[in-house]
Amino acid sequence: MGVDKKVIKLVPYNDALKRLASVFCNEAQKHEIVSVKDAFGRILAEDIFTNINVPENNISLVDGFALKHEDTSSASLERPVRLKVVGKLYPWSSPTDICISSGQACYVTCGAPIPEGANTVVKIENVISYDGEIGLKHKVKPWENICLAGEDIRAGTLIFRRGEFLRPQDIGVLAGLGIKKVKVFRKPRVAIISTGDEIFERSRRDPEIIANNYALIISGLISKIGGEPIISDIAPDDITEIKRKISDSLNKADIMVTIGGCSLGEKDFVPDAVNSLGKPGVILHGVMIKPGKVSGFGMINGKPIVMLPGLFASTLAGFYLIFVPTMCFYMGLSVDDLLPKLKAKIGQDKQADERPYHVFLPVSLRSSNEGLIAEPVMDGPASLSRFMKANGFILLPPRKGLKKEEFVTVTLFSNDELFRIMSA
Amino acid sequence: MGVDKKVIKLVPYNDALKRLASVFCNEAQKHEIVSVKDAFGRILAEDIFTNINVPENNISLVDGFALKHEDTSSASLERPVRLKVVGKLYPWSSPTDICISSGQACYVTCGAPIPEGANTVVKIENVISYDGEIGLKHKVKPWENICLAGEDIRAGTLIFRRGEFLRPQDIGVLAGLGIKKVKVFRKPRVAIISTGDEIFERSRRDPEIIANNYALIISGLISKIGGEPIISDIAPDDITEIKRKISDSLNKADIMVTIGGCSLGEKDFVPDAVNSLGKPGVILHGVMIKPGKVSGFGMINGKPIVMLPGLFASTLAGFYLIFVPTMCFYMGLSVDDLLPKLKAKIGQDKQADERPYHVFLPVSLRSSNEGLIAEPVMDGPASLSRFMKANGFILLPPRKGLKKEEFVTVTLFSNDELFRIMSA
Repeated sequence: MGVDKKVIKLVPYNDALKRLASVFCNEAQKHEIVSVKDAFGRILAEDIFTNINVPENNISLVDGFALKHEDTSSASLERPVRLKVVGKLYPWSSPTDICISSGQACYVTCGAPIPEGANTVVKIENVISYDGEIGLKHKVKPWENICLAGEDIRAGTLIFRRGEFLRPQDIGVLAGLGIKKVKVFRKPRVAIISTGDEIFERSRRDPEIIANNYALIISGLISKIGGEPIISDIAPDDITEIKRKISDSLNKADIMVTIGGCSLGEKDFVPDAVNSLGKPGVILHGVMIKPGKVSGFGMINGKPIVMLPGLFASTLAGFYLIFVPTMCFYMGLSVDDLLPKLKAKIGQDKQADERPYHVFLPVSLRSSNEGLIAEPVMDGPASLSRFMKANGFILLPPRKGLKKEEFVTVTLFSNDELFRIMSA
Repeated sequence: MGVDKKVIKLVPYNDALKRLASVFCNEAQKHEIVSVKDAFGRILAEDIFTNINVPENNISLVDGFALKHEDTSSASLERPVRLKVVGKLYPWSSPTDICISSGQACYVTCGAPIPEGANTVVKIENVISYDGEIGLKHKVKPWENICLAGEDIRAGTLIFRRGEFLRPQDIGVLAGLGIKKVKVFRKPRVAIISTGDEIFERSRRDPEIIANNYALIISGLISKIGGEPIISDIAPDDITEIKRKISDSLNKADIMVTIGGCSLGEKDFVPDAVNSLGKPGVILHGVMIKPGKVSGFGMINGKPIVMLPGLFASTLAGFYLIFVPTMCFYMGLSVDDLLPKLKAKIGQDKQADERPYHVFLPVSLRSSNEGLIAEPVMDGPASLSRFMKANGFILLPPRKGLKKEEFVTVTLFSNDELFRIMSA
């Protein structure tokens, strides 16, 4: 029984990234205009400047009385100053609706404009109230309880930058500035194609079982970084079937990702399928990363396809080190823009790997009284259970070891990890 | 013109929390059963144990040949040991499909079970291949490249706890264990009712404008912590209209939250509306928190209603200090379960407040080379622009000051903040 040995030439990781980036450098970036209400969690594709002052007028920060502070200079406990209340202003009033003269005051609700002539506001609880008049027992300083026009945000200010992720409060700010629509990056549709006789057979035998659970994980992670995942049917280890699944996805997706079938075994048909479907086909296959070295990348008729290995530790390493940069470049972002990072102290020594590989080191984060501690959670074969304990990874450059207590940058698997970081 | 002064009695924050908790202590918790595929981002309402080993059999971690390690004891560069290849096993094969005797080997793909009789696996790249035979130039150790049954997860293990938030990889683990459905907390539907003539008038004048932008922020934050927000129409400062909006929401929502109209001005009708709609009405109005002291809480016909002040700094403080605990208690969780927290060093001294108030101190987080630094971003009147810079808050107990470099616990506004934490 003959078994052919295949060989791939491994490319240093930094070179692999350059090769990926160069594929997309001339691509038009994909944008769309959405209503501000629908922009939660989207990434801005434009800088945003405001053209109004916030607040538009000087406004009162309290419910109280607007008046001239000079009128209170003689106020005392024994001889309160009395002022005539000449009107009321509400937040939707105009400051020119009322003009205050000496000896007068105007009731202002919180957020109301300061009427012309007034230069301070006294809280309602600090006045004595008479019929149509108020009394003040204390001298008042100018501009008390007033927020000046433009004090919050001045017209012309750059308030959001291209590439920023929009949080709930950002949406409120945009809406508050009267901005109705924003330009955001289009969410790439990503087709996920699982391959492998094993999962194909399992799902055929019991259609209710979720045989391609790695696809489910990759799908969830893609949503978390702003893509729209589409889970495709499972392809068996058959080149015709793999080609058919990839062809189907070409029409539905912007980016494709395969799981499995890109190693060096006799049934690893994915690279051949990619090469036979269109030019240029496989651009990269084999990267000096550990694990995940058989990860690859290709282009079929202008659409990117990322090939991930089928063993989970390698699938995940390929996802973060090859797929995520691909999605960043596709969107016109920088390689690290989509993933949250935190600094932590490493919990134990980690010996340098001898080979010139970048090392994808999963770590579990623990919140101690003195900040975050990162504990390496695996350094061996694939294991779902150990990955459950991991919250992110450290990417070690070739031949870099770590000394206990050294500060490291941890890239979180997603921002959901915050719910799992344990307290000491 | 007469202006009535209203008075509320402020309750210490810890007492307010106890009062909230006691309202829900006899409530049945609300669960639902969902398909594992749909359980992303949901919170588990049950402990989950596995009843299978992962992997189920001893499996190969590589593409290679399973054999008896004893057969290789005499292998050398000059005289390779030759073994007869008697079959192939795939991941979906059974370990009893083939039985290895001395002098035999079996081709195994990555993930395939180890055939009976074999006790080690040699990688395909480390054998010489002949017609129907393989040659080995080196002695092989037992149990190389094999993952033992149950090595990843042993049957009977507690793998997830009640209250845990399900991340993408957790879904994959559940699916991989053959678990098809899980019990999760039902997402509470939360109606958000904005009140105020100002925003009512603005939205009437220009229906295209998003006048109730605070409602939009609160709505986004509610989604982030696992609720289903429903933004209601704006009510003007009119008790009949406010009652009508709250009544409408009673039918659609599990929890209600109002914004504005709960202060002490002449147009603050929300507490009266709550009291007139059902028993017991207002349970709490006025809390020793700064800002946000006029926040309140009530029950109308068994449904909780949280009253938030209308100035943004206070709205947000009331949201995190009163609304979020209400939602936790409603769901049967602990007060802090829904919000992510991180430790950080405070960037500057902060003087203690003299009054016995809990202080809600918004901070901006910055990732330095030595971990996170928290900088207080406001200590004065409301300002949307300053809140844009904040990523979370510190809750200071009464009369507690902070010394620069002291470690503090920062509660993030949501896990989205991770995308905004700046690098030094």
